[in-house]
Amino acid sequence: MHTRLATLRSFLPQEADAALIISETNRRYLTGFISSLGYLFVSREKAVLLVDSRYEEAARAQVDNCEVRLFHDLSQDIPALLREWHLKSILLEGSAFTLNETARIEGFFRTADASAIKTTELDKILNRMRLFKSNDEINKMMYAQHLTEEAFNETIKLIKEGVSEKDLALDLEFRMRQAGADGVSFDLIVLTGAKTSMPHGVPGQETVHHGDFILFDIGATFKGYHSDMTRTVAFGKVNQTQRRIYQTVLQAQKNALAMVKDGVSCRQVDRAARSYIDEAGYQGCFGHSTGHGVGLEIHESPSVAPNNDFILHSGMVITIEPGIYVPGQCGVRIEDMVLVTKEGCLNLVNLPKELIEL
Amino acid sequence: MHTRLATLRSFLPQEADAALIISETNRRYLTGFISSLGYLFVSREKAVLLVDSRYEEAARAQVDNCEVRLFHDLSQDIPALLREWHLKSILLEGSAFTLNETARIEGFFRTADASAIKTTELDKILNRMRLFKSNDEINKMMYAQHLTEEAFNETIKLIKEGVSEKDLALDLEFRMRQAGADGVSFDLIVLTGAKTSMPHGVPGQETVHHGDFILFDIGATFKGYHSDMTRTVAFGKVNQTQRRIYQTVLQAQKNALAMVKDGVSCRQVDRAARSYIDEAGYQGCFGHSTGHGVGLEIHESPSVAPNNDFILHSGMVITIEPGIYVPGQCGVRIEDMVLVTKEGCLNLVNLPKELIEL
Repeated sequence: MHTRLATLRSFLPQEADAALIISETNRRYLTGFISSLGYLFVSREKAVLLVDSRYEEAARAQVDNCEVRLFHDLSQDIPALLREWHLKSILLEGSAFTLNETARIEGFFRTADASAIKTTELDKILNRMRLFKSNDEINKMMYAQHLTEEAFNETIKLIKEGVSEKDLALDLEFRMRQAGADGVSFDLIVLTGAKTSMPHGVPGQETVHHGDFILFDIGATFKGYHSDMTRTVAFGKVNQTQRRIYQTVLQAQKNALAMVKDGVSCRQVDRAARSYIDEAGYQGCFGHSTGHGVGLEIHESPSVAPNNDFILHSGMVITIEPGIYVPGQCGVRIEDMVLVTKEGCLNLVNLPKELIEL
Repeated sequence: MHTRLATLRSFLPQEADAALIISETNRRYLTGFISSLGYLFVSREKAVLLVDSRYEEAARAQVDNCEVRLFHDLSQDIPALLREWHLKSILLEGSAFTLNETARIEGFFRTADASAIKTTELDKILNRMRLFKSNDEINKMMYAQHLTEEAFNETIKLIKEGVSEKDLALDLEFRMRQAGADGVSFDLIVLTGAKTSMPHGVPGQETVHHGDFILFDIGATFKGYHSDMTRTVAFGKVNQTQRRIYQTVLQAQKNALAMVKDGVSCRQVDRAARSYIDEAGYQGCFGHSTGHGVGLEIHESPSVAPNNDFILHSGMVITIEPGIYVPGQCGVRIEDMVLVTKEGCLNLVNLPKELIEL
């Protein structure tokens, strides 16, 4: 945590006297402190987190890598800070500042004869920093995954004729949160029957039937960190077509996992899964990327996509989640979350992947 | 729904050929269609909703007040649209466009020799339109409130020595969602003991004890619309100090409700509650506003605050939620959500407010 502000500082572009971070995620990443509102100024020498009275006490107790100040009126407190620290040009967090919020802050800056730098530079720096997970971050993701697996193992016991997608999704979420998850990584996806062919389907009142796949794309958050996993199980015996789809996805996923390693490109990993699926005769049935980075957000860099030459390095956490989707029939996706290492990868998911026929 | 696009059009500033709406809430408000991504262009004559392949089918089936187009590549599809419709200046939704998203879209605009207008004007128009709720919108809010009350009436049966704030909050949320709520209006607030004095407290492992207040600030969403209610109940008998605080808040809340009426200002409503609390000797113990608008978002215009001269009109929905907070001791807040009418207001909350000692 202590090195993060120093790292950010070292990457500050020459024309910026300071960076201003307002997103909940990046404030948390840089200071460790959780709040719904706050203004983090990082200059070349110092840093200060401005919070309101709701957070003052907690911030003073918890933040140990920068100053904490209570703000009363930003229209006065921000100009005062800029004058005190002699800041003239401030790089804004372009992914977090809306046009309206930018107009407001620029007004405050003008009062102190300062101006905003409105580029994507700060996001690029922070996204690059966040690619590499510390042991502490990895532990949180592993615990989030542990909570997901515990819930999954209980919830699948409820599967029977008549149970709905929504029932299962709600049960999973409730179990995760009761066990200590902050919340869910995203609106949990539980789909059954023909709906499994929709990669972005939403759980509804549809109920499970014998011979159907049930697809679970689920994850919990723990202390801000996300987990992400997909398992497709069968309710009763599946037919030969379904079985072949399942085995093809499973082998494609294993091929991609076997490719993951420090120094390998996202494109190579994607191709390992995609070419196997294509060659098995399912061209056009795998319409999304093979994976994505995970961390404080569910979708982070890099995108494990066909045209991405980005090179994976040790310490990055990505998902590997190929699928085959046959509209109107069924779909299968199998997803693990893995830590890239020197020799290969460490799978952060501990559940089996062989076809389960409940 | 059909008049909304026409109303927006009629308020478009002269310099704009069209408006571009990208927020989930305003897209939904203007088209009735729910999607996580979409680009709604409203020109002086026409309107089109650009969606990706995930939403194409559903959008074509559901959107009946404007054209729906599938987009493949915005860098080509947006310039093509601007050329086709001869649009040269497009007013952006300033509360929704981040700096990064703005830079991207301006690049697309330039390809068609068009430019962006980056003011707060579009938000002002839409916020003003959204002040006035239709019967359909009010019905959805009433149903969201109904789901909240049903859950509340069940959850309070669980109150006993040892039950935690978190247990109660989780139980409420799951009852609401099982009964058909989209979700919760905000992270539900359930606080007990001294924590009731924190207007923004977060439910934790703290358990209820005899003689404590338990404060519930809760709400559900239904078809996008929010409900908002606060009730403070006692577990066992409260002491005279607590009773006096409760009765003072209750009377202050009733005074504010009695003031609400078409033509009255937010300042007057706020003063009706605040002056009663101050005169009862609790100056400085009521640190927030008396209320706020509610609708597709939990906090909308107007703010029922001490310095707001905004005039309330029939068809607006606001909360009335005074409180008294004595740090380290206890707090009480009582909140109803009401529809402003010609003669007064219609309370959308049906639960009693007299002190309940469980």
